[in-house]
Formats: sequence, structure tokens, C-alpha cells
Amino acid sequence: MDLQRLLAFARGDQPADLVLQNAQVVNVFSGEVHPGDVALADGLIVGVGQGYAARETVDLDGGCLSPGFIDAHVHVESSMVTPRQFARAVVPRGVTTVVTDPHEIANVCGLAGIRFMLEDAHGVPFTMLVNASSCVPATHMETSGASLSAEDLATLKPLPGVLGLAEVMNFPGVVSGDGAVLAKLEAFADRVRDGHAPGLRGKPLNAYVATGISSDHECTTVEEAREKLRLGLTIFVREATNARNLKTLIPLVTADNERRFCLCTDDRQPADLLDQGSIDHLIRLAIAEGVHPVTAIRMGTLNVAEHFRLHDRGAIAPGRRADLVVFADLQSPRAERVYVARRLVAAGGRSVDPASAAFTASTAPAAIRNTVHVDFNRVELGIPAQGPRIRVIGAIEHQLITDHLLLEPAREQGRAVADPARDLLKMVVIERHRGTGNVGRGFVTGLGLKRGAIAGTVAHDHHNLVGIGADDRSLLTAARAVAEAGGGLAAAEGDRVLALLPLPIAGLMSDRPIEEVRAGVDQLLRAARQLGSPLHDPFMAMSFLALEVIPKLKLTDLGLVDVESFRVVPLFLGE
Amino acid sequence: MDLQRLLAFARGDQPADLVLQNAQVVNVFSGEVHPGDVALADGLIVGVGQGYAARETVDLDGGCLSPGFIDAHVHVESSMVTPRQFARAVVPRGVTTVVTDPHEIANVCGLAGIRFMLEDAHGVPFTMLVNASSCVPATHMETSGASLSAEDLATLKPLPGVLGLAEVMNFPGVVSGDGAVLAKLEAFADRVRDGHAPGLRGKPLNAYVATGISSDHECTTVEEAREKLRLGLTIFVREATNARNLKTLIPLVTADNERRFCLCTDDRQPADLLDQGSIDHLIRLAIAEGVHPVTAIRMGTLNVAEHFRLHDRGAIAPGRRADLVVFADLQSPRAERVYVARRLVAAGGRSVDPASAAFTASTAPAAIRNTVHVDFNRVELGIPAQGPRIRVIGAIEHQLITDHLLLEPAREQGRAVADPARDLLKMVVIERHRGTGNVGRGFVTGLGLKRGAIAGTVAHDHHNLVGIGADDRSLLTAARAVAEAGGGLAAAEGDRVLALLPLPIAGLMSDRPIEEVRAGVDQLLRAARQLGSPLHDPFMAMSFLALEVIPKLKLTDLGLVDVESFRVVPLFLGE
Repeated sequence: MDLQRLLAFARGDQPADLVLQNAQVVNVFSGEVHPGDVALADGLIVGVGQGYAARETVDLDGGCLSPGFIDAHVHVESSMVTPRQFARAVVPRGVTTVVTDPHEIANVCGLAGIRFMLEDAHGVPFTMLVNASSCVPATHMETSGASLSAEDLATLKPLPGVLGLAEVMNFPGVVSGDGAVLAKLEAFADRVRDGHAPGLRGKPLNAYVATGISSDHECTTVEEAREKLRLGLTIFVREATNARNLKTLIPLVTADNERRFCLCTDDRQPADLLDQGSIDHLIRLAIAEGVHPVTAIRMGTLNVAEHFRLHDRGAIAPGRRADLVVFADLQSPRAERVYVARRLVAAGGRSVDPASAAFTASTAPAAIRNTVHVDFNRVELGIPAQGPRIRVIGAIEHQLITDHLLLEPAREQGRAVADPARDLLKMVVIERHRGTGNVGRGFVTGLGLKRGAIAGTVAHDHHNLVGIGADDRSLLTAARAVAEAGGGLAAAEGDRVLALLPLPIAGLMSDRPIEEVRAGVDQLLRAARQLGSPLHDPFMAMSFLALEVIPKLKLTDLGLVDVESFRVVPLFLGE
Repeated sequence: MDLQRLLAFARGDQPADLVLQNAQVVNVFSGEVHPGDVALADGLIVGVGQGYAARETVDLDGGCLSPGFIDAHVHVESSMVTPRQFARAVVPRGVTTVVTDPHEIANVCGLAGIRFMLEDAHGVPFTMLVNASSCVPATHMETSGASLSAEDLATLKPLPGVLGLAEVMNFPGVVSGDGAVLAKLEAFADRVRDGHAPGLRGKPLNAYVATGISSDHECTTVEEAREKLRLGLTIFVREATNARNLKTLIPLVTADNERRFCLCTDDRQPADLLDQGSIDHLIRLAIAEGVHPVTAIRMGTLNVAEHFRLHDRGAIAPGRRADLVVFADLQSPRAERVYVARRLVAAGGRSVDPASAAFTASTAPAAIRNTVHVDFNRVELGIPAQGPRIRVIGAIEHQLITDHLLLEPAREQGRAVADPARDLLKMVVIERHRGTGNVGRGFVTGLGLKRGAIAGTVAHDHHNLVGIGADDRSLLTAARAVAEAGGGLAAAEGDRVLALLPLPIAGLMSDRPIEEVRAGVDQLLRAARQLGSPLHDPFMAMSFLALEVIPKLKLTDLGLVDVESFRVVPLFLGE
């Protein structure tokens, strides 16, 4: 807005567009909740206090008014819907700004994928900011669909909505001084650079921090978070679908250090977004864990804005964006009305924006849609038995880290096979970007399937075609169903496909509304439970078992990865 | 430092230059004080923790180690010495970075004055940052030596050490939308813009904040500070020589809002710098007022760094500048050793830097030295009596604001004259930049001189030649002495000069060491006391009585200014 016009509104010389009267203002500056009126005009807050006139007045009748919530770190792709559909889910929850790392689609489609995400969010009444994906591919121990150099990433810097450098997951590369990694850090030296360093401590952590990386969202213990906090990293407290750290970390938050904490969702399934919510859910959880409500809201507003140097939002103050949330109960904030850039965009948990058509139609170019390339004639799932002991991935529910187990394999006709009785399932990662025929083969425990198989093209971070099953036939059926759908998730038993959710956009996202996707996921989960898995979401669990940047043992299309030594290791230990 | 080299130090692969062992680290991130070793190399902190080897080790034996203190807002010129000499005074106190507004010299010498300040600080082991002076002149109700437009100020932006826009004192201009003021705000829209808005409340304050101005250091009551805090201004708590707000404002600081407070000295006399200190003094005062020591230190370190987006300092963390302070008593931090960019620069309150020669020699070009131009033949001090009542400036010790009094003048031969018996002294402001012969004439109470006069070219913000006296002869003697010295401060009685401190650099600063200047000031103060003034420092008090941006009544070379109505008003009220 023109400064003269803004001043006229703020002075009260010109009536505002809208005044929200009788609010209990959640003041993230002073830490108070105090009565006030808030005047809005054009897209901004123009006045806080008494006596502003406006063309329209809404009496909040003592309702709480908070700045719009900000998600410090989220992969929109994990919602399995496009940014527009994602917004339809989170905006009615009060989330008006999200800082995203589009590295799922970037690993499949490169810069074209990132540009698609930005374009898809364009015109939607929320702010989707993008951090340039620093780790595409995450490592060289898996085949990806694209590779982004420092120069590639630098081309994103001038784009509107592009903020800084996204989670630098290659922490061994940072610490050891890998030239390509340092080039990315240097290309974004004038921007915020986010971190991701699970378990990093001591001198290597000092090295990581010294490069200017300023956050971490991978703490799993208070001790780890305390060390990182002390060294100056902003701690993003994460509560994802699969990685839930909030209850663990909240005891570390005190009045003396709360400014160094932000909230982030990282990866949330459609059902969790729709049923629990997004940052609003985390705020409620934090309050339930004993955090003062204003502090909890700060962790999802001002703290995030300050971390990312977003001086135009994150608080209710004149000149800032009129992104606002109205709710009744300070002890359990649940958005009743949501304003974005002063327009009412959601009420009672639903979008009311007259331009809500903006939310629906996503148009993805062919290159983004046609991304699954598997020649099944070249795919071999069998594992010749080679030794008395195998490395087994020990999946842990609600955690991204896994155990690295050594177990005796089950054998059948000279082959190592799944043994559902011991919850020892076969896992395969089929390269799907280039049709190389690469297949990584291994075993996993913790998924609990008694029979059949599940498969999907959502497999962090390179999104090859991953499958877990009790037998090879079911595995192949599920994998083929997914490939034929152009990407997606499937459950199968024998030759029969029990459930299939097509995800044609990069093999990661649906082009359908989030409610439909959620129904599709529910069907998949029912099928998986029918096959014996007791997990809340075995598909999400599976999707992180290929993530070779999170300890301890993971599987990629190139084989098993010992994350702690950061190298590919054989499945069998010596005879 | 090269990133590879930094990483080698941080990993411990290469011995650091120096390790400070057995420190009690003041951790401004976590709010704790915890044991640790801190490794330094080149100019940076490279590691915090145990086990770093180094070429040199210093055992702190449990001494506290804090980040170097940062002054959020200071006019170096008020120390009456050059930046090098100023550094010699404050660095041994632990102040390693100062954010300055060189608007005193800018009002006399324009951009050349600002460049002189930057050059003078160059090579000195501390960081003097400059905010571009937004109000030169402060208003058009006084004659200044220079005028800086938005375009002029924009030429400073690319210079190293130039940060943002300095205190925007023309708050009526901001609120009313004065085009020249808005142009300056817009020229620095991508930088931090500091505020100065004494007494501004309600809608006009909303307007001021809406422009993006983000701080204020002029709060004089808790109520005023609370309102500004709530609207999002960072509150700079000031403890100057003449304006002391710390004890008043500290009760507002709580764990819930302390991040929004910084400490600043604004204007400090040489004696106060040498005897009390700088930000270290404010930290001790805050602790004595009940603030937690780590919070008090934060207000003088991290909070300031964050406000000014100085991500390279303000905390003890790898990758940040090795600006550090060692002290024994957390309850009363008094710098024992000071490191700047990892070099020991002060110990036991004195500079020990081998390059301390850098502190001494200031070379000012002729244009900066030859700035006092008064043609005394054109100067008329007499005031024809015109009415029954006069407006009188009511000076208040330790405050910049004054009262606006209406009193009966003393008369003598048709003239209004001083009446020391009623503490009604004559005040004159003689234009000294262009030799116009302008003289502002008025009366002041609160200075307490019984006879004689004081005069000086330090007169905020335009630094004309100001004098206050019990009679015109003494006034003229003092004024002439100052003019003949090329600027300075003087006390006189009759034809006799009692004391004179030459300030040949812009009429504001000495080219001598600060201890000499302090001795000169002491002489002046003794002379003023001898003349009857009971004030701690009548010269500093006088220097703010021409400051027509601070309410209520001030005097410039163009006459009396009613600051609240922001216009020149007559001395006499109607017959």
C-alpha cells in the first residue's frame, strides 16, 4: 500500500475497510492478551486501539484475535495434494503462511517441479514461501529424478516467494566440507539457511553451526535440543504424522529461551490435516503440555517470522499483513474465522472466500505428470541367500530413525525370503525415474504385515518405487499397480489389488480435493490393517525407510545404507 | 574466513588460535550460564565445548564469558571526542559494537562529517556502525550547517558499516505524511529504520509504526513504553548523561517481553564514560533493579544484534565474531578482559592492544575543523520588553523534555532581562554555520546560575552557538571565547573567561585524548558551580535546550519553538 494512504488509515483520517471490535488481542510482543479493536485496510493492519471507523465492523465480542499461524517447515507434497488443496486444508485452521521445502517434487522433476509448486500456490489466499531445496539428490547413494547444483538453486533466489536455503540434510557433507554442499551454503549466504542434523553433537555440530545454518527440526531428545539451542540453532519443534517430537521437546521450553523455538509440521497426512489440523494442532498440544498460550502462539507466529526475517507478519501491529485468526478459547485455540490480507477466507473450519475457486483447479504440465518409468522386465526381486546373518531395518513407529539390526534370514530354495511370523518383511526400492532396472533389496521389521504387500512412489527423498511385503508376488502386484497409475500408493495380496490411490503429479500428489485423497488413504489403511499391520500408517512409515539421511539403516535403489558411516553396506554379513 | 578453514577449526582438525578455558559461558540463547571452553581463530568463535586444542590457552578459572556488549543507539559526538578516542573509553568496558547516529556532525558538515566519522573509526578494534542521519536538519525551525535529502542519504547505503536509517525524529512529519520524510523512509525500506517519538500515543503512534519504523528510545513512562511495546516497537532503554530512563522503564521488563528491549546510551559525557562506563553500566543498573543478569546482558547483546539484523554477533556461538568480555561477578559485570575479533584489546579497564596507536591520531580535514562562522557585529542579544508575560523554558534535570512556563519578565530600561534571583536566565542561540547574524533570544529556568554565563557550540541538533547567562556582558564573553576557539564550551564572568574547552572538530569534538577532554569538562563544571549552578552538568542540560524535536518549549536561532504545536511562537504573550 502507498505510504500516504496507509498513514491516512492509521491516523483515522480515512475509514478503514474493516474493524474487528472487542477483540482480546494476543499480543506476541508484550506477551499479554489485552482488549482492543483492530482496523484493517487493503491487505494490512492499519491500527490497533480504540476509535477507528470503518466501512464494515465485526464485533468479536471478546473473542481472541491472534496473528495468522506460520508453519516453519513443511513439505506440502506429504499431504499428497497440490498447494491449492493443501491451503484449503490448513487455512481454515488459521495457518496463513507456510515455509515449504519442495524437495519431494524437486527430486522427481527438478526446478520444473519447484516452479510448478510456486505457480500452483499463486492466487491462493495464503502465503506459500519456498526454501530452495538443498539436497537434490539427498545423497549419491540413491538414484533421483533430478539433481540441483548451487547454480541451479541460485536461479530461484530472485523469484517472488523464494526465501532461503532449505534443510541442509547432508550434514556429513557440511561437516567434512564437501565442495558442492559448501557452494550451496555460499550461494545463500545472504539468506536464511535451514538445518537438519539428527543426532549431531559435539565438534561436528559446532562445524555445522559455524557455516551459518541456523535451525534444526530433527531433535529427538531434550539433551540433543539443549546442545543445539546453546550453540544458537533455532529449534523447530516438529509434530509430523510420522515423527512426533513435541511432547519430548516441550519440557525444554522456558520463558528464558522460548524465543528460540518454532513449530513445524514437516510431513502431515491428509487425515491428520483434516482431523487434527496443522500448526493449530501443535499450539494446542503445547498448551496442553503446560506452555503458556501466548508462548505457544508465539512459537507459531512471531518466532517463525523473526527466524525467517519476515518483518511484514507474525504479529498484530500497524503496517503488518492482516493475516488473523479468531478463536474463542485461549487454552485451546481453534480457528473460528480466518482473515488473509484482511479478507475473511474461512469460518467454522471451512473456506468461505468468494474466490475459493482458486483453491481447486491445479494444472500440472505433462513433465510433472508423467514421471514413473519402470521396465518390469528388468526388475528382479529375489535375493540369493549368501550368509548366516542379515542387516535388518528396525522401523520405529512415529520416528524417522530406525534401528540397525542383525538377524538370521529365513531361507527358501537358496533364497532369503520374508518371514511374517517373525515380522521380517521384504523391502524393495525400484528405481522409477530413468527405468534403469535398479532394485534395492532388503528386510524390515516393525511393519507387521502378515500377508500381502504395500507399495508406493512416495519414498523420501528420491521417491523411487518402494514396496514392503510378505511375498514377492504380492509385492510385484502392488508395485505394478502403482506404476500403471503414474504413481501412487497401493495394497495388494497375491495378484489382487486391494486398494489404489493414484498420485499422478510427480507420483507424489493427487489432482483431486484433499477429502477424496483422504478417503483413498483410508481405504489403503484399511487394506493394510486387513493384511495384518497394526501401525497407524504403514505407508507413511514405509515412505521414510528409504530416507538415507536419517539414521540408522535405510534402503535405496542402490542398496542398504548405514547412515552413521554414510555408505552402502551389504545385506549379508560374512559366512 | 574461508569456510573450509572455519570447518577445520570447528571440527578440531586444526588447532585454534586461542582457547578460553573453564569459562562460565553467558548463553544468551538458552538463558543459562554454563561451563564451557571457547575456541577462537582468525576473528571468529570456532567452537564451544570441550577438547579444543589451540596455540594459546587462557584459563578463565570460572570467570564469566559474555558476548561483547552492543550499544543500540549512541551519538559518539556527545563524548566530545573522535570515534577513536570514544573506542578507547568504551572498549575496555566491554562494548565492542556501537550503532551510531552521526547526526551531530552531519548537521554541521553534512555527508563529509559522516564520512569523517566512518574513516576515523576505521582500523580501530571495535565496530562502529552508522545509521544514516534522517533529520538533518531536524526541522526547518533552525538554521543548520547542512541539509541531507533522501538522495543524499541513499549514497551512504553501499558504504561498509552503514546499517539503516537513524532515529526519525520528525515524528510530526512522519505522521502527517511529509513527502521529504517519507522519501527517506522509502529509501531505507530494506533496512532497519529507528524511531524517536517522545510522548507519541494513540492513532498518531499507529501511523508512525505503520511506516515500518521499528524502535523508540524516548519513552519516559512505563505507560508510554507499554503502548509502544504492544504496537511492536523495540524499546531502547536509555541511560544517557542527561536523560536517564532506565530505572523508570525497567519495571516493564518481564520474561515474557524482554526480547523487545535493548539498551542504549544515546549521549554520554566523557566523565560518565570514564567513571561509570557505557552499556556495562546500564547492565549493572538493570541487574541492581532486579533484572536477571542474563536478561540484562541480552538486552545489551543478542537483542540489539537481532533488532539490527546483525547475525554475525551478539552471542557466543561458532561462526560468530569473537567479540567477548570476561568478568568475575555475574551480579555486577565489570570487564576484566575484552576480546575483539579474537584479539585481547583491553584488560583491567585499559587498552592493551599492540595496535592501540590506532586509537590516538585523528586527522580531520579543514572543512571539518573550520565550522564556526559568527560575525559578532551583527549579533544583538538585547530583548525589547513587549508584554506582561513571557514564555520560559523550564529545564528539568536528567530529562530532555522541558516545561513550557508563562512568567512575568524582569525589566530594565525597556528591556526584558535575566533575573537570577528568580532563576530566570537569558538564553541565546547564535547561528554559527553561515554567519547570518540570526540570534534566538529567550529565557530559561532550572539552570541556577547566580552570575556569569556559559556558552557552547554543542547544541543539539543543529549545534549553533548557545549561551545562558545572568547578564549580556558575560554571555558575549563566553560566546566570543567559544567562537575564537573554532568551537567548544566556555564559562565566563564579565569580561573574564573562567574556563574554555576547545572542540575544533565541527565545534563538537576535541582532537585530544578523552582524559584531557574530561579534565577540561571538569574545569568547566567547577566554573559553572562557582557561578552558582547546582546542576550535575549545566552544559549538557544547555545543549538540549535548543532541541526543538523534544517537547515542550525550546529555543533555536529562529526563536522559541512550541514543540507540541511544532511552530515558532513569540516570546511575549499579548499586552
